[in-house]
Amino acid sequence: MNRVALRSVIGGLRSGGGWNRYISTAAVARNVETAEFLKPQNDGVLGAFQWRRMMSTGSVSAQTSEEKDQKESGAKKVDDSMVVSNYWGITTPKITREDGTEWPWNCFRPWESYQADTSIDLSKHHVPKTFQDKIAFRTVKFLRVLSDLYFKERHGCHAMMLETIAAVPGMVGGMVLHLRSLRKFEHSGGWIKALLEEAENERMHLMTVVELVKPVWHERLLVLAAQGVFFNAFFVLYLLSPKVAHRVTGYLEEEAVTSYTEYLKAIENGKIENVPAPAIAIDYWRLPKDSTLHDVITVIRADEAHHRDVNHFASDIQFQGKELREAPAPIGYH
Amino acid sequence: MNRVALRSVIGGLRSGGGWNRYISTAAVARNVETAEFLKPQNDGVLGAFQWRRMMSTGSVSAQTSEEKDQKESGAKKVDDSMVVSNYWGITTPKITREDGTEWPWNCFRPWESYQADTSIDLSKHHVPKTFQDKIAFRTVKFLRVLSDLYFKERHGCHAMMLETIAAVPGMVGGMVLHLRSLRKFEHSGGWIKALLEEAENERMHLMTVVELVKPVWHERLLVLAAQGVFFNAFFVLYLLSPKVAHRVTGYLEEEAVTSYTEYLKAIENGKIENVPAPAIAIDYWRLPKDSTLHDVITVIRADEAHHRDVNHFASDIQFQGKELREAPAPIGYH
Ligand SMILES: [Fe+2]
Ligand SMILES: [Fe+2]
Ligand SMILES: [Fe+2]
Ligand SMILES: [Fe+2]
Repeated sequence: MNRVALRSVIGGLRSGGGWNRYISTAAVARNVETAEFLKPQNDGVLGAFQWRRMMSTGSVSAQTSEEKDQKESGAKKVDDSMVVSNYWGITTPKITREDGTEWPWNCFRPWESYQADTSIDLSKHHVPKTFQDKIAFRTVKFLRVLSDLYFKERHGCHAMMLETIAAVPGMVGGMVLHLRSLRKFEHSGGWIKALLEEAENERMHLMTVVELVKPVWHERLLVLAAQGVFFNAFFVLYLLSPKVAHRVTGYLEEEAVTSYTEYLKAIENGKIENVPAPAIAIDYWRLPKDSTLHDVITVIRADEAHHRDVNHFASDIQFQGKELREAPAPIGYH
Repeated sequence: MNRVALRSVIGGLRSGGGWNRYISTAAVARNVETAEFLKPQNDGVLGAFQWRRMMSTGSVSAQTSEEKDQKESGAKKVDDSMVVSNYWGITTPKITREDGTEWPWNCFRPWESYQADTSIDLSKHHVPKTFQDKIAFRTVKFLRVLSDLYFKERHGCHAMMLETIAAVPGMVGGMVLHLRSLRKFEHSGGWIKALLEEAENERMHLMTVVELVKPVWHERLLVLAAQGVFFNAFFVLYLLSPKVAHRVTGYLEEEAVTSYTEYLKAIENGKIENVPAPAIAIDYWRLPKDSTLHDVITVIRADEAHHRDVNHFASDIQFQGKELREAPAPIGYH
């Protein structure tokens, strides 16, 4: 009827085209035993799971430690003693970009990058209806006033602080639902994954923002204090009332959209220099190589609008007296 | 030189072959506006991100709530009121298996399923060297004696309890590293993802085991108590000494391998009936349709051996005075 089954004529997950084109086998090819895994299996095609098999059969000497990654993530070079002591047979395959250059990020892989949907409605707002809604709304507005007083026009620092906070709710929600799923022996309807994805997305925002704004010591201290307070407060709130917790997050995301809109205006007015986009942002959001700060903030803002929708949706479900698992979670919705 | 760049001739992630072949568009095709997203873009191929775009542009009326999922996850049918109230534009596309049947699981997607590497060495053991190693080893051995006393020959119940516990360390580790990454503005080297993947994998074990063994009330109570104690104890341990925490997990996984070997023996001896594999296991581990309990326990045991390696590896890194982020995490290593 009106069901259109999308089927691509070529490729496919089982054929592993998506994965393997990114994975070069520097780590594995040194080992004769493992080389057999490079041969096509299963109808002559390499599967995504092949990568895992490759990883699990690497030899000790095949460990690749010369990751470019380390330059960018600030990590030091892994020395040989670590490699030798690792008899656990775990090797990390080299991954390459489509153009053959080395993939420098271990925190996300090519198949986790995406193009942000910037067409999303930025002005959507959940009008507070219930008493709890109003409490949630007022709390967030109060926090907004505080942060505006502190950061004023320093949009970069504001964004940095915002992201260290914004990455907390998804992790708390994901963890609580995970533990509930284990205790009650029931599925979460995908919500664990959806919320953990949100947390990861926010962490990627932070990793992008810190490339642009180097935090100074008192900002670091503030982040430390803010996380300590916010994590615990949100954790307790999520245990007491997940629907209010998701509403609060929804409103936080609405404020994030507003903040990033102001950031964009400051760039457009020339108050903030429109510097080139950090390398990590170009890879994560599949941006053109000549992208700028303005492009990066635009895609981050689109992400925030998606988080807003997910969290208000999660709150709505529960305000209707249902459990989250009763509605399929929006997995992969950025 | 010895670098072999694996490149598949057909398919590829950007072309989205892997994703879209599984996604039918019952949810989206009802909406004329969104139908444009079904048209090939980007060199005539549909990208993985297209799915996200499709999701973000679905209309309110296009919400699909008649998921088969619900039967299997025990969730009730989503009623219309929930759908109507959801003006957040979030729709969940139908996903199909390769044979065209509906994908019934919202907790994992076709591209997250894998074939377990059952060739992994099951007998590997980390000989306790340091004082902390010995404490970790003795603690786990003590817990083992307790659980053997309680469960005796009831391998199904034992597995159920084991999995509710085993899914905790990955979540705790992932959360702590996530919060640290936010506080210190630094990458985790992929360890957050690797540990959260482990937690999800363990949760899938549990979802499989509960299809086989329905817990009774006093077992549910025991799980409740055990989680309460273990989560808090492990959380504190992870904050105090992550290297000991990973060592404890490594030894727990060694015990899990042993337990599942005994389970397999009981099946082989005919003490436990070799029933057909649950549907969820067939989809998650890509097992043949006629697989049995024996096959399922075999792949679960292989997973445990992988977790053992990951956790002893994580502990080794830190016993060498390094931080986890200094060694690339084994992402996707089951
Ligand atoms: Fe963000
Ligand atoms: Fe956000
Ligand atoms: Fe397990
Ligand atoms: Fe395990």
